[in-house]
Amino acid sequence: MKVAILAEGQFAPATAKTAIGVLRYAPFQVVAVVDSTRAGRDAAECVGVGKDVPVVASVEDALARGATVLLIGTAAAGGRIPDGYRSGLAVALERGVEVWNGLHERVLADPALAAAAERGRAKVRELREPPADLPIGGHRVRREGARVVLTVGSDAAVGKMTASLEIVAALRRAGERAEFVATGQTGIAIAGGGIAVDAVVADFIAGAAELMVCDAAERADWVVVEGQGSLTHPGFSGVTLGLLHGSAPDVMVLCHEAMRHSVKGYDDRQPLRTLREYVAMYEDAAAWRRPPGYPPARVVAVALNTASVSEKLAYAAIQNAAAETGLPAADPVREGARGADRIANALREEVPA
Amino acid sequence: MKVAILAEGQFAPATAKTAIGVLRYAPFQVVAVVDSTRAGRDAAECVGVGKDVPVVASVEDALARGATVLLIGTAAAGGRIPDGYRSGLAVALERGVEVWNGLHERVLADPALAAAAERGRAKVRELREPPADLPIGGHRVRREGARVVLTVGSDAAVGKMTASLEIVAALRRAGERAEFVATGQTGIAIAGGGIAVDAVVADFIAGAAELMVCDAAERADWVVVEGQGSLTHPGFSGVTLGLLHGSAPDVMVLCHEAMRHSVKGYDDRQPLRTLREYVAMYEDAAAWRRPPGYPPARVVAVALNTASVSEKLAYAAIQNAAAETGLPAADPVREGARGADRIANALREEVPA
Repeated sequence: MKVAILAEGQFAPATAKTAIGVLRYAPFQVVAVVDSTRAGRDAAECVGVGKDVPVVASVEDALARGATVLLIGTAAAGGRIPDGYRSGLAVALERGVEVWNGLHERVLADPALAAAAERGRAKVRELREPPADLPIGGHRVRREGARVVLTVGSDAAVGKMTASLEIVAALRRAGERAEFVATGQTGIAIAGGGIAVDAVVADFIAGAAELMVCDAAERADWVVVEGQGSLTHPGFSGVTLGLLHGSAPDVMVLCHEAMRHSVKGYDDRQPLRTLREYVAMYEDAAAWRRPPGYPPARVVAVALNTASVSEKLAYAAIQNAAAETGLPAADPVREGARGADRIANALREEVPA
Repeated sequence: MKVAILAEGQFAPATAKTAIGVLRYAPFQVVAVVDSTRAGRDAAECVGVGKDVPVVASVEDALARGATVLLIGTAAAGGRIPDGYRSGLAVALERGVEVWNGLHERVLADPALAAAAERGRAKVRELREPPADLPIGGHRVRREGARVVLTVGSDAAVGKMTASLEIVAALRRAGERAEFVATGQTGIAIAGGGIAVDAVVADFIAGAAELMVCDAAERADWVVVEGQGSLTHPGFSGVTLGLLHGSAPDVMVLCHEAMRHSVKGYDDRQPLRTLREYVAMYEDAAAWRRPPGYPPARVVAVALNTASVSEKLAYAAIQNAAAETGLPAADPVREGARGADRIANALREEVPA
C-alpha cells in the first residue's frame, strides 16, 4: 500500500493535522503530499515531519509516484470536503485509486465523485463512518487488571493523539502490553481501526468508547485512549464528556499546546483556563460517572506540545507546567523517548499492576 | 388530525413516557391508545392522564376510531422498534395512515414496513431525524435581552420536558413572551418542531441546541429549553453537556424524580448524587463554557416529580428538596399552577428584564 495525502493549499502545521499525524506515525509508506502551492518542497520543510516525502502539484503527479490510496489530509471544523479537493478526488477515483476520507461529509454523497468512483470501480474508505448497532454506555464491565489511560486536553488539536501514541510506545519500551484506541479520523487512519466518536449518533458516544476500551482490555494491560476536544470547548464538549465517561479511565494525562491561550477557531472569544483548573475539571467530571467507593481517576502528568516555540522557551514552558500543576510534564515529541518515558512512569506509579 | 398512540404491552408509567407526555400536553386530539394487554380501560386508569381516551386492542380498532396518525408512544434506551410493534405499524401504513416515530431506528429501514408504506402511499415522520447542515456550536450570539432557561436533571426520564412545558405556561400566565424548545422526540411531537439532540452526529450537539435557542430568542423573551439525560448518566452525559453548552442558559431548574435513587436502567449500579451535588455540578459545568467576566448561570429552583408517591410523602419530599438546596421546590404537575408559578417566580427574580 502506497498512500498519497491530499492537502491542497493547506499543507501547513495549523491546517494539516491529519497529514502530519500520518506522516509521523503511519505504518504504511507515504509517497507524496499534494499541494500545488508548496510543490517542489520536502514535506518536512512544510510541517516539520516527512523527510524525503515530496510535495507535488497534482493528484496526477502523486499517482505517477505509485500511490494506491489517496488520503484527505486536512480537517476543518464542520467537516465539509473543500471544493478545491473535488477535482483531485475525481481524478483518483476515475483511475481506480482508493480514497480515504476522515471528514463528516461523505465522498460518495457528491454525485460527481460517486460517478467517478463507479467509472473507476474505486473504493472509498470513510474513516468516520460508525459501525451499526452501537450500544448505550454503562452496561459492560471491562476485564479487571486492565488499566485505562485517557488523554484529555485544554482544547481540540493540542496533541492528544500524538501523546497517546508516544505513551503507548513508552509503555511498550518498559515491557508493558499496551494498546492504542483511536477515536478520531487520523488515529483511525494510523491504527487501521477505531471509531470516530465525534461522528456517532450522540446517544452512543459513551457506548462507542466503552466498546473499544472493553475490547482492547481483553488484549492489553494498558489501554491508551485518544481523547477528543475539551470540556471547555463551545462546540465539542459533549463529545469530550461522553468519551470520558464511556472510556472510564483509571488515570488521565492532560494535553496542552504551549502557545494556545484561547479556543482555536473562536477569535479569542473563549480564553482557556489554567492547567490547574483543567486538572480539577477533568477529575471532577470523571468522578461523576464513578459510583461512590471507586478510587478517583486522577490526572497524573502533563503532555505539552511545544512545536510552535523555540527550544529555550519550550523547556521553560515544560518546567512551568510542572510547577503549576505539581505533576511531571514533558513534550513527548520534542524530548523524544525521555519525555514520553517520564509520562509513562507517572502512569505506572499511579496504577501499579 | 386524530392521533392514535401505539404502546403495545407497555402502556404503563415506567415505559410509556412519550404516550404520557402527548396525552398531557399535545394540542391535537388523541383518539385511542393501542395496548392489547390493557384494552377496555381508560388511558387515565393506566398512566394517570388521558381521561376518556380508550385503550384498544389493535391498530385496526384505533383506525376504526378515525385515527389519521399512528404515533409510537414508548421509547426504550437504544431506540430499536420493538418487534411486537411491526405488524401494527404495517397495518397503519398499508391503509395510508401516517406514522410518527421517535425511536433511533427508522421505520422505512425495515423492508416490510417500507413495502407497506409504498402500498398504502403512507408518510412517515421521523421525529428524531436531524436537519442537514447543522452548525458547530459557539459561533452564534443570541439576541440580547432574551433569557434562556434550561431544565437539568439527576437522571433521564425524571420530568424535564414536563417541567419545561409547565414553566412556559407559568411565564405566559405572568404575561411574559415565553417559548418552549423541544430537544427530544416527545417534545417534538407536542411542539410540532425541534431537534432531537441525542440523535444528531455527536460533533453537532451544541450547534443544534444553539441554533434552536438563537432562533427562539428572536421571537421570545424567555426561551425554555427541554434538558436531556444527566451529567452523571453513564450513557447520555455527553448529550447533557453538549446541550448545556450549546443552549448556554442564563438560569437552570433542577429536575428530579422523588423515588429515583439510582440511574434508571442500570440495576442500582449507579447511585444518584444528592440534590446539592447536582446543583454544584451543573453550575460548574455551565461555567466551563462561559468566558470569564460573564455572570454565572445558577440553578434557582427544583422541579420535583412526585407522581409515584402518596400525597403526604409528596409534600414532605418537596419540603426536603427545598431545605436541602436552599431553593424553591415544587411539583408543577401535582401542585398545578401554584407549583409552576413558584418556579417561574424564582426565574424572574434571578434574571429580571
